[in-house]
Amino acid sequence: MKKISEAVVRRLPIYLRFLNELHVRNIQTISSRDFGERLGMNPAQIRKDLNYFGEFGKKGIGYDVPYLIEKIQQILKLDQTIHVALVGAGNLGHALCNYNIYLKSNMKITAVFDDFPEKVGSQINNLIVQPMSELTKTVQSQAIRIGIITVPASEAQNVADAFVKAGVEAILNFAPSIIKVPQEIKVHHADFTTELHSLAYYLD
Amino acid sequence: MKKISEAVVRRLPIYLRFLNELHVRNIQTISSRDFGERLGMNPAQIRKDLNYFGEFGKKGIGYDVPYLIEKIQQILKLDQTIHVALVGAGNLGHALCNYNIYLKSNMKITAVFDDFPEKVGSQINNLIVQPMSELTKTVQSQAIRIGIITVPASEAQNVADAFVKAGVEAILNFAPSIIKVPQEIKVHHADFTTELHSLAYYLD
Repeated sequence: MKKISEAVVRRLPIYLRFLNELHVRNIQTISSRDFGERLGMNPAQIRKDLNYFGEFGKKGIGYDVPYLIEKIQQILKLDQTIHVALVGAGNLGHALCNYNIYLKSNMKITAVFDDFPEKVGSQINNLIVQPMSELTKTVQSQAIRIGIITVPASEAQNVADAFVKAGVEAILNFAPSIIKVPQEIKVHHADFTTELHSLAYYLD
Repeated sequence: MKKISEAVVRRLPIYLRFLNELHVRNIQTISSRDFGERLGMNPAQIRKDLNYFGEFGKKGIGYDVPYLIEKIQQILKLDQTIHVALVGAGNLGHALCNYNIYLKSNMKITAVFDDFPEKVGSQINNLIVQPMSELTKTVQSQAIRIGIITVPASEAQNVADAFVKAGVEAILNFAPSIIKVPQEIKVHHADFTTELHSLAYYLD
């Protein structure tokens, strides 16, 4: 399969979320026009994105919602069980663990780490905060593949290094700093300031 | 000026953050090659993105860091003062207010709202949590232009409606639900699950 651009990959979960909402409301089919309108996107863009992966729509009818959900989940590998670890049990770490309940897929935060003595041993939902010294052992025993960083910027690189050493394959970095990792590790930055900064562009 | 795609606009803050890091370390110029390598992006993409807005680089030398910072800030309108309001004083709301200190630009969260009686009147950093009934008055008196939603999914549409009514121009929605707003209001979804889901694509 030809290499798909990151922009496309980043739109697929948005489509998936929207389709899941339709599914909850028992909507069975959606045209690319309605799809685009509801998401504020160009329907041609949506069709083009999905066409990279197959012919999922029917001309004059649109997309079958449950079928397209299944297909996008397969494309995103959300049909696998994927365990996620989080380092940094502050407000953001807590908030992200609470999102676990929204992750209807098999992707879950299954371990939380922090090195502050007052946080180690505390509980977030059903997870006990572990010390960083346990990271490698837990990542390996739980087959954790993705690491989330929610520590201050000054600590982010150390945590990234620890994740890489422990064997995670991808990192979601919420710290407002750039981390360096080996090329085979995929990193997404989920910095809140970049979201806000790109919104500012659209102000009059 | 020709319409710039959202993908380009979303990359500019990433460039800006990187340039600010270089600036802190007193690095004066950067080639597009190093730029791309450090960000894990194609240098041609970076050059193309920046060329939409002007000729900022010099052949054989690269980009002047402070100059490019200034230009990107202008493009993103970060040279203006932009006030932001946040609704939802939970863990995520707290975490975002803490990011305020990282926002070196003139963009700041200046008001926080929540309708839980036990939260109203509490303090997050230097901000007092206000009841929702104060939203319109505060948005107008502080000239707030961007609203952030960090309430549960079931409340997100109500908050969006309140923001629109109060007169904000753009919304950053962290709730895992799609909100409907008039066309002239720009919405970004900053749902953590979509970040995680797009990362899964890159797992082997």
